[in-house]
Amino acid sequence: MAGNTFGTLFKLTTFGESHGKAIGGILEGCPAGLPLDLEAVQRDLDRRRPGQSAIVTQRKEPDTVAFYSGIFEGKTTGTPIGFAIHNTNQKSKDYSHIKDSYRPSHADYVYDQKYGFRDYRGGGRSSARETASRVVAGAIAKQFLGEVKFTAFVSQVGALKLDTPYQELDFSTIETNPVRCPDPKTAKAMEDYIKKIKKEGDTIGGVITGVIQNVPVGLGEPVFDKLHAALGKAMLSINAVKGFEYGSGFSGVQLKGSEHNDPFNTDGTTKTNNSGGVQGGISNGMDIYFNVAFKPVATVLQGYETIDKEGNVVQTKGKGRHDPCVVPRAVPIVEAMAALVLADFALLARGNKM
Amino acid sequence: MAGNTFGTLFKLTTFGESHGKAIGGILEGCPAGLPLDLEAVQRDLDRRRPGQSAIVTQRKEPDTVAFYSGIFEGKTTGTPIGFAIHNTNQKSKDYSHIKDSYRPSHADYVYDQKYGFRDYRGGGRSSARETASRVVAGAIAKQFLGEVKFTAFVSQVGALKLDTPYQELDFSTIETNPVRCPDPKTAKAMEDYIKKIKKEGDTIGGVITGVIQNVPVGLGEPVFDKLHAALGKAMLSINAVKGFEYGSGFSGVQLKGSEHNDPFNTDGTTKTNNSGGVQGGISNGMDIYFNVAFKPVATVLQGYETIDKEGNVVQTKGKGRHDPCVVPRAVPIVEAMAALVLADFALLARGNKM
Amino acid sequence: MAGNTFGTLFKLTTFGESHGKAIGGILEGCPAGLPLDLEAVQRDLDRRRPGQSAIVTQRKEPDTVAFYSGIFEGKTTGTPIGFAIHNTNQKSKDYSHIKDSYRPSHADYVYDQKYGFRDYRGGGRSSARETASRVVAGAIAKQFLGEVKFTAFVSQVGALKLDTPYQELDFSTIETNPVRCPDPKTAKAMEDYIKKIKKEGDTIGGVITGVIQNVPVGLGEPVFDKLHAALGKAMLSINAVKGFEYGSGFSGVQLKGSEHNDPFNTDGTTKTNNSGGVQGGISNGMDIYFNVAFKPVATVLQGYETIDKEGNVVQTKGKGRHDPCVVPRAVPIVEAMAALVLADFALLARGNKM
Amino acid sequence: MAGNTFGTLFKLTTFGESHGKAIGGILEGCPAGLPLDLEAVQRDLDRRRPGQSAIVTQRKEPDTVAFYSGIFEGKTTGTPIGFAIHNTNQKSKDYSHIKDSYRPSHADYVYDQKYGFRDYRGGGRSSARETASRVVAGAIAKQFLGEVKFTAFVSQVGALKLDTPYQELDFSTIETNPVRCPDPKTAKAMEDYIKKIKKEGDTIGGVITGVIQNVPVGLGEPVFDKLHAALGKAMLSINAVKGFEYGSGFSGVQLKGSEHNDPFNTDGTTKTNNSGGVQGGISNGMDIYFNVAFKPVATVLQGYETIDKEGNVVQTKGKGRHDPCVVPRAVPIVEAMAALVLADFALLARGNKM
Repeated sequence: MAGNTFGTLFKLTTFGESHGKAIGGILEGCPAGLPLDLEAVQRDLDRRRPGQSAIVTQRKEPDTVAFYSGIFEGKTTGTPIGFAIHNTNQKSKDYSHIKDSYRPSHADYVYDQKYGFRDYRGGGRSSARETASRVVAGAIAKQFLGEVKFTAFVSQVGALKLDTPYQELDFSTIETNPVRCPDPKTAKAMEDYIKKIKKEGDTIGGVITGVIQNVPVGLGEPVFDKLHAALGKAMLSINAVKGFEYGSGFSGVQLKGSEHNDPFNTDGTTKTNNSGGVQGGISNGMDIYFNVAFKPVATVLQGYETIDKEGNVVQTKGKGRHDPCVVPRAVPIVEAMAALVLADFALLARGNKM
Repeated sequence: MAGNTFGTLFKLTTFGESHGKAIGGILEGCPAGLPLDLEAVQRDLDRRRPGQSAIVTQRKEPDTVAFYSGIFEGKTTGTPIGFAIHNTNQKSKDYSHIKDSYRPSHADYVYDQKYGFRDYRGGGRSSARETASRVVAGAIAKQFLGEVKFTAFVSQVGALKLDTPYQELDFSTIETNPVRCPDPKTAKAMEDYIKKIKKEGDTIGGVITGVIQNVPVGLGEPVFDKLHAALGKAMLSINAVKGFEYGSGFSGVQLKGSEHNDPFNTDGTTKTNNSGGVQGGISNGMDIYFNVAFKPVATVLQGYETIDKEGNVVQTKGKGRHDPCVVPRAVPIVEAMAALVLADFALLARGNKM
Repeated sequence: MAGNTFGTLFKLTTFGESHGKAIGGILEGCPAGLPLDLEAVQRDLDRRRPGQSAIVTQRKEPDTVAFYSGIFEGKTTGTPIGFAIHNTNQKSKDYSHIKDSYRPSHADYVYDQKYGFRDYRGGGRSSARETASRVVAGAIAKQFLGEVKFTAFVSQVGALKLDTPYQELDFSTIETNPVRCPDPKTAKAMEDYIKKIKKEGDTIGGVITGVIQNVPVGLGEPVFDKLHAALGKAMLSINAVKGFEYGSGFSGVQLKGSEHNDPFNTDGTTKTNNSGGVQGGISNGMDIYFNVAFKPVATVLQGYETIDKEGNVVQTKGKGRHDPCVVPRAVPIVEAMAALVLADFALLARGNKM
Repeated sequence: MAGNTFGTLFKLTTFGESHGKAIGGILEGCPAGLPLDLEAVQRDLDRRRPGQSAIVTQRKEPDTVAFYSGIFEGKTTGTPIGFAIHNTNQKSKDYSHIKDSYRPSHADYVYDQKYGFRDYRGGGRSSARETASRVVAGAIAKQFLGEVKFTAFVSQVGALKLDTPYQELDFSTIETNPVRCPDPKTAKAMEDYIKKIKKEGDTIGGVITGVIQNVPVGLGEPVFDKLHAALGKAMLSINAVKGFEYGSGFSGVQLKGSEHNDPFNTDGTTKTNNSGGVQGGISNGMDIYFNVAFKPVATVLQGYETIDKEGNVVQTKGKGRHDPCVVPRAVPIVEAMAALVLADFALLARGNKM
């Protein structure tokens, strides 16, 4: 399996399945001499952690990260940072209900087809549990990037949509509610709706909006590695993501060029920001903002009909503790992936000029 | 500048600026022994060519590709395929109107900031002219993939939207109108609208829908190189693209899991296809379909105010021959990038099993 | 720090310093469905282990590998194999003798210059301890490659040289003596010589010869990734290596073409093998054989003069338990790196033809 | 075919066969703003050119490089530098003597086995003609590196060996004789010997010594991409190379650690330089020096017996114009590859520290 590495210079490689002994990763390329706040890393992990509120999965996973290398006397040494999160929750259970049957819209069927067999205990490598490693690396990337500020929040759950422009929102309220929506009223409506969906044994999709502020001018590598292309890939690599748009996005297609163009101020900033902080694939110093669409979680706690390995129709039922809506816990993952993208481009940009 | 390479095994590297002597590329990794139909390659290039209809730029660029290596006696040899498209249109012109001023929502400003200076004759490396090299490589990728069928068409121009599900469209009509929209009535409305926009000296955005059929099961490399993530990056790397969604996309966030899940048929196909042919980042054999949002072209043939290198406000006016709407000519580019993604994953998939 | 990854498809990334909590790695790309003999992996690790005989370092490191992922029910799953070797020997010690002074011909000085500071407890990332991770991955590569047989042995220690052609040696005797030299008489002389060197508090260099048998025809990727170029890099990346030659090597420069050329047998094999199993960078099915030169270990247990961080001359003395001669323990490392090279090329070769 | 790319940031990709329309490449990553002396590039190409003296092949190939992109107003723009060298010598000839038979110690057999067929007109992709592209890129790398000085010279032809330490040689004499040996007397002997070998229709091997001076401290990326490992791979990727050693090399294995270690001066330089300018894979600022062994060219102008595709024994005879000894023309190639290695590490080193 290729595809376990993200980034060219600031580079994360991850390992681990949902029900194995540990997940973890190796982060290469973080420059030497960065004082690391390891508690800040753990804080981001805690924001992704199961069991943190009533509207997320009630699984118990403390998700404590252990660092093995690359840090000495509180600072990065320039050598690879190896880390692991041990699975404390690992026990032999009865997997017979999923071992031989394929859950609809999960990766069970395609893994079996691709690799010939699979670790059938949960999602294996396709489980969102893998994203915990990304949060660890992303938290380090944030510290490397210093002034650059990464904010993500839930802007839609089902049909409940927060339409306020991000500039008018108070980001300090994001972590004050379990949905991570910076509008208390909408947050409450979303929370209630998720609880209702959960009670039905069902799940619901949502949208996360990301905002990156204080971005240096000049990040992004045309032509294939445009900043927004790398950002899009980063987001689309998160479990359950179905779409990505930045700046004016899908709604921008209805604008004329004369309306969509962002006129310059004399300092090189722009009066409007339909570009979303990126022009020609390169950051222009304005805020980068984007939306990420998440489908509803595939595991529903209802009975359903599906097939087994031999193609026989079987009756089964979802069980266990699952997220009724994935977006609240995905907020730190969106931030982490955004930070990994920018950290990599920040290092690449060191090669721009003589 | 990093970022000129696309793919891991089936790998394209491109070079060239809009006003240089030539653009071109090197395609590595195409297996040996593929009989190449070079006329089919040129046909795809012709679909991207300027001057092909009244609603695209009237520049004259024949865009004839010359192959330098990697092909012998009509077949690929397994060695890298070097090719170039010489610029026949290259002449010394008066660039004074753009040399020192920054066109809004172009890459002029960011290139100058990133690299210290730039080739100011047109868009340089940020010009969409570079995509001709992608079309060449993509046309070879299509031939490598054989049965896999790539179709792209214009599904929206401004607010004019084709809402018919792709399954109900007659793809054979796509190339029968200059817009490349497989619904004659909508195509005519779009064409008229683009002509109107052009007359205003303005531009308009649009959406291209892509459909990939006869996809083998098992393509895509979790976790970071999920099939749809690579596809999204490929599309977002095309000039003017602002968004990407696949399967149920942004509208899927409003569905419940019980509605969104795709139940299996006994042969492993699914009854519905909200997944868009990809589950867990791996193709499941169903059609892959996706939407790509293009912003309006930034060059408007109207007077406007902008700044020069020193930050002075200057009055200028767009001139030359530009596309009023980019989507008709971008259709073969979308196909090409999709084919490059699948060709790479097809080669990577050869390593799946013992 | 870049450079922690080896391979393109069969790909190892390692982490860890000599005195950190753990070293380890992530092995990607091993195809799914390979039954893994984990005891064979541990056996190779044991051959590299300190303390295994009187002529190697007497440090106590059991070097037990723990696998975290990628293996299920005894077989590889196709997902990345994460593993770690915990340092059981980690304790706070007095490092004052090396903290501020630079040991000659060690990496202390260059690490400080490159990164600004370093983990001064032992060699840090430049320690040969890192190679244990390579042995783990190489042992898996051997199993992946099945019939291909990797043999390495000590062919020279100081001026004591085994001149017998490898074809006339009995490889089964390699592991019967602590030097790993397949000639009992020479082995005894080498062993005695190493003991004498050790008694002097000094160290001595040596040569390891590698032989790869049953190699499939067609491995190696011209032009930059020729089989022998990748093999050479693999060997030169091992600590203390100063030279690499394959086939006729340095002595081949004295031959005429008419003498050096290897005439064909009618089955495509060759009557002689000056080519060393590689022609034009591609394996031809004959044995691959090569020599790897190792310098004497830099840590001598004698007093010497050196400088500290401020450039002051200081008197110091090597202490601790170090190898008087590195080659006996490097034998499994040479095999491991050779196996990693061939495993990667074996996967790449799956893309050769349509 | 993978393997056509060299470098991570300062990155060259080449294309082209010996008898195709053109060879060439794309050089990515050269920072913007480097004033390029294109005549200096052509001068290095001329040093590699056939027909330059009586002891090299008498083929006529002017080898004029055309640059297509990445350079504007005399300076690099930061965008990829595309270039091509057109084959002026291309004509339809009679290849029947090599079409179906396999020349011993050439790549004919392995290419046919690997790819199923090959471009049988000369060496195809395995021809040393490909190295012209490396010389172009290497010449740019030299200019990028400024003060770093690359020198290569012939130090051995057959058994004729120049034993003088490089420090005692006058490098200004290298280009004053056709052998490129900086000792007039030895050069004359080598020249005479090569002429004699040529008259016999035979070929002979040789050694090139490379010296890199004014190297910044801190280049090289442990652990797998040690400076000398990358350098070794670079050299071993040149056609006909059989071995590489640096610093004390193979002779260093006979030294004791107390003799081999390089004591520090108080400024961080070392009193001796057995390390060859590299410690722990990182440059220490001392001269880097190394030897590269070249086998005799396989094409001998004598009759010989070989096999054809069907395994039948056939009588044939080498013809055409070939080098009796490859080393004089390989001198600029060795320099070029060394420069590519250092340019890449120079860019990577920009990421070392915060």
